Amino acid sequence: MNTSLAWLPADEFTRILEGIGDVHERSRAFADASRINTLYSIVRAGSGHLGSSFSAADTVSWLLLQEMRSPFEPGGDIYFSSKGHDAPGLYASLIGLGALPEEKLHQLRRLGGLPGHPDVSIPHMHANTGSLGMGISRAKGMILGDRLAGARRRVYVLTGDGELQEGQNWEALAGAVRHGMGELTVIVDHNKIQSDTWVAEVSDLGDLEAKFRSFGWGVLRCDGNSAQELDSAFRLREKEHAGVPAVIIADTVKGAGAATFAATSMPEGEWRYRFHSGAPAREDYLRAHGELVASLDALLGRHGLAPLAFSRADLTLPVKPSGPQLPQVYGRALVNRALADERIVALDADLVLDTGLIPFSQALPERFVECGIAEQDMVSMAGGLASRGLLPFVHSFSCFLHARPNEQIYTNASEHRKIVYVGSLAGLIPAAPGHSHQAVRDISALGAVPGLVVLEPANSAETEAAVDYCADAESSTYLRLVSTPVSEEAEALGAEPLTLGHGRVVRAGGRTVAIGSGPIVLTQLLRAAQLLTAEGIELTVVALPWLNRVDSAWLADLAAGADQLFVVENHYTHGGQADLIARSLLELGQEGLPAFTGIGLTEVPECGTEAEVLDAHGLSAKRLAERIQERVRRGAHR
Amino acid sequence: MNTSLAWLPADEFTRILEGIGDVHERSRAFADASRINTLYSIVRAGSGHLGSSFSAADTVSWLLLQEMRSPFEPGGDIYFSSKGHDAPGLYASLIGLGALPEEKLHQLRRLGGLPGHPDVSIPHMHANTGSLGMGISRAKGMILGDRLAGARRRVYVLTGDGELQEGQNWEALAGAVRHGMGELTVIVDHNKIQSDTWVAEVSDLGDLEAKFRSFGWGVLRCDGNSAQELDSAFRLREKEHAGVPAVIIADTVKGAGAATFAATSMPEGEWRYRFHSGAPAREDYLRAHGELVASLDALLGRHGLAPLAFSRADLTLPVKPSGPQLPQVYGRALVNRALADERIVALDADLVLDTGLIPFSQALPERFVECGIAEQDMVSMAGGLASRGLLPFVHSFSCFLHARPNEQIYTNASEHRKIVYVGSLAGLIPAAPGHSHQAVRDISALGAVPGLVVLEPANSAETEAAVDYCADAESSTYLRLVSTPVSEEAEALGAEPLTLGHGRVVRAGGRTVAIGSGPIVLTQLLRAAQLLTAEGIELTVVALPWLNRVDSAWLADLAAGADQLFVVENHYTHGGQADLIARSLLELGQEGLPAFTGIGLTEVPECGTEAEVLDAHGLSAKRLAERIQERVRRGAHR
Repeated sequence: MNTSLAWLPADEFTRILEGIGDVHERSRAFADASRINTLYSIVRAGSGHLGSSFSAADTVSWLLLQEMRSPFEPGGDIYFSSKGHDAPGLYASLIGLGALPEEKLHQLRRLGGLPGHPDVSIPHMHANTGSLGMGISRAKGMILGDRLAGARRRVYVLTGDGELQEGQNWEALAGAVRHGMGELTVIVDHNKIQSDTWVAEVSDLGDLEAKFRSFGWGVLRCDGNSAQELDSAFRLREKEHAGVPAVIIADTVKGAGAATFAATSMPEGEWRYRFHSGAPAREDYLRAHGELVASLDALLGRHGLAPLAFSRADLTLPVKPSGPQLPQVYGRALVNRALADERIVALDADLVLDTGLIPFSQALPERFVECGIAEQDMVSMAGGLASRGLLPFVHSFSCFLHARPNEQIYTNASEHRKIVYVGSLAGLIPAAPGHSHQAVRDISALGAVPGLVVLEPANSAETEAAVDYCADAESSTYLRLVSTPVSEEAEALGAEPLTLGHGRVVRAGGRTVAIGSGPIVLTQLLRAAQLLTAEGIELTVVALPWLNRVDSAWLADLAAGADQLFVVENHYTHGGQADLIARSLLELGQEGLPAFTGIGLTEVPECGTEAEVLDAHGLSAKRLAERIQERVRRGAHR
Repeated sequence: MNTSLAWLPADEFTRILEGIGDVHERSRAFADASRINTLYSIVRAGSGHLGSSFSAADTVSWLLLQEMRSPFEPGGDIYFSSKGHDAPGLYASLIGLGALPEEKLHQLRRLGGLPGHPDVSIPHMHANTGSLGMGISRAKGMILGDRLAGARRRVYVLTGDGELQEGQNWEALAGAVRHGMGELTVIVDHNKIQSDTWVAEVSDLGDLEAKFRSFGWGVLRCDGNSAQELDSAFRLREKEHAGVPAVIIADTVKGAGAATFAATSMPEGEWRYRFHSGAPAREDYLRAHGELVASLDALLGRHGLAPLAFSRADLTLPVKPSGPQLPQVYGRALVNRALADERIVALDADLVLDTGLIPFSQALPERFVECGIAEQDMVSMAGGLASRGLLPFVHSFSCFLHARPNEQIYTNASEHRKIVYVGSLAGLIPAAPGHSHQAVRDISALGAVPGLVVLEPANSAETEAAVDYCADAESSTYLRLVSTPVSEEAEALGAEPLTLGHGRVVRAGGRTVAIGSGPIVLTQLLRAAQLLTAEGIELTVVALPWLNRVDSAWLADLAAGADQLFVVENHYTHGGQADLIARSLLELGQEGLPAFTGIGLTEVPECGTEAEVLDAHGLSAKRLAERIQERVRRGAHR
């Protein structure tokens, strides 16, 4: 889609800051200008967290402009967001203050640009966040570190309200009191809506003030979209709670600043807030942009300033890839299976949309358990359900399912309970949210759990078969689902009956053989095969959906037909399918094994578009073809 | 040590139950009889958690005798302990009631007996616990499962007070309120002492009643060592908090029932409670046994019953192995290094004794951070400290360090912060505490963390070298420390300079080569080599302390001298050293690779003595020798 997008250059921010004397009005104007550029950057990127960038904008502006001491100097006060997905808003503010280069505004979620969640490689980002609930602990470490260096600076941490469902927040509170951390102020961006819907519907926070107070924290409350109220709250924080950690519960509106995005504009009966992540539709963008400009121009006018002067970018917006999404295919298949299998219960951690569970929650509400952002609680509950003879299917993004409740999964396994864990958003792609959301360590982290089979389907048909496998198998399963739309090539592979440890040839070729699993790797391998044909290499492509099991006899047959064997992984090179196949090959005890090459990630994943990031990590069709060609030219070693 | 130990046969419990009419007196007598047998079983086992078995005994007795409906029948009420280490007390009570076979009393912490922490393979154990903080979540799952089946039974969960430092407890509370779980009663065994010392010293719980109340729970409080007060509390729970989850904060005395063990007997100024785990010394045992008998006999006398009639077991008590313990060696080396390196800070999660940190906490208190039982908070704090230029050494038992804060470790790695993680109690041995404490999945769970080197020293000298390596290396390190005393054979190996990915031959032999790491595996391999000599096989034993790195050139040299290569692991067979070496061997691309066999755990570890459990899992010298001999006889395949 060709379009023209408007953004505010940094000198417009300077004009606002210099032209408005009243600190509250100035902060408000700065926040609205930041919102305009936030919207621009998200629309340009094609995705990004709009709602919470907007709800937090007034807090961020007030902190940066008025409250913090020397925020951009060494030794100055520190601010970071624990939830992290409000990064586009913070970036826009930092660019407006000249603390980040202006050109970065055009590079949200791009390789070498600004990642979807904070990364400390970006100036003034103090912690990698995006995986929820770690911020307060991080801040405590910073404060203890400063104290050891004889310094004392204030640390401000923004948390979400839904984020407070994570137990680590509460685990962190006592230590701050014990250490008398008057330097620490937590601001809860209390916008009342988490990923899926209203916090009160998902897992109500109850009396939040009483909770923090019971842990010994100073508690304040204010309208977090009002500069005046924020001002008062921060002053009271110093005055009434010196020497102790304090929280400011900032009541905000998700999407505040533009009526189009404001949660207060949601129609009666609508349960889902549409602007949590993802770029808005064109008409929503235009309307919201107009609202923001009208409001800010009016404010500027009241202070005798000329209307906003925009720069424009004419560009081709990213086109959303089409194709089936495995979590949605999975979700429908789960309903079908569950209708015939009363043991099945589904547990979710505030990702009902993205894990494909809306159909289940509607068709079988009595067997659907919404746990909130509380993965450890969810997994341990699944253990309790399983002990009563039920068959829990446990859902989250893979990044949050394999690591946070890792010990809970193991404990369930030690009871030999059958449980199915379903991680969507698995692997490197989409790479736009950044490394907190890229699950490329899950096979390693779960692969050794006894009795747990790790399975990654290649396409829709195999996903449907996988649901039946998970329900029928004696073992527990971790089902690894890529969330980006499946390519036509991968869809065309269809499915064959799933047999533990067996793969299948999905492209017949010569004695150069590549094994992979899942739609991302298989698509790139099939495309690499086309490139290699031109080089005189006919690549045999094998889909092996089993990530921690391989059948020896099947592998022996495959190896007998191979001079070169490649295993390509949407995962780190350690602890995944390549290690498994290498060991199994060696343990076969055969003569004349093929030359072996494992290809996977060796570095923390980059953030960017699919094409950029696959290429950067050597996993694009082109780079795979080059690697395979180079290896084949070097020759088989035996 | 030959000795005679007294225990109460089940018919003595029956006599007490039938002979005392007053329910409170009866419960008290039953609790004391259980304490007597708990003490017996722990002394016989040579280890076990005495203090909290005693503090909780009155609660357990009251629950089983008076409060619960049909606790031993299907559909009856459920009780389990979330902390789990009070299992010996529960076993003694269940045996007293005939719900477990009497002979099991003599098999605490033995293979096929009663594990150190609960396992659901034992009748009336409803959840595998021992890793803290999961109990409330588990109970919620049970209740939802019961409701789906149309049943409604009450679930009672005992938690520790120190255990409440774990965030998962607080994560779990909201859901119980949301689901109106009147079936759920949590009893906090508030004995005020956690593993190391007083809870208030480690991480004070503050106003515990206010905390639970702020989360919407019903709250009651009573003397948890008084049957009368427990009775009142449980009746009020039903009366005043029907339809909502409730907590009874049961104020108890750790070691209650015998003055010798009672925390109230601790001398002024003594900071460490001596009876948390481990068997008491003989004189303490005799004194406490006498106290318990005198008290219970007096009670029986008041009810017209004859004194206790004991059975006796004449037996040889287990002798504690001697030899240096690596965590203690480590702790002294860390102090030495830290005195010369101001960047180093040490973080602990309530295991200051068992992680070897007492010298550090005393020598460098300003650089010692006691985090309490809060591993996620601790690891994220370490990230904050590292961001300020410090070098955190982060400590816990390996079982609690590799899994609970797994995502936090990864997040730190994504920032490329240098942090040293030190996990003691690593591996299968000691096997007496059971699988919650046997860290045999840590290499897999952490091996793929980018920039994290996993290192396991073989003995004292290598541990000292490892501390310097950890401090000097550019990478982060996970230092895996076995806690049982190191054998003379392993100590005699000394150390050579640590070179990343390089191992060393510690026993020269022929072309049958076995690789291992750590004192447990190397000791068994050296002993296996002796057994194999008699069979005409001269085993070459190689110590490779690097668990997720191997140097290709070093490995190529080693492989060239081998016909048979074995890799033996104190870990599951998946995701550890064997996988790494197999893949590296294949990727060498050499002709004539040795035959390869990986040996490690394939099942959830058994509980028992070192000898029993090594043998059961095929890792004893004898079983290793048999396996190697069998494989060598089958012949190299190329």
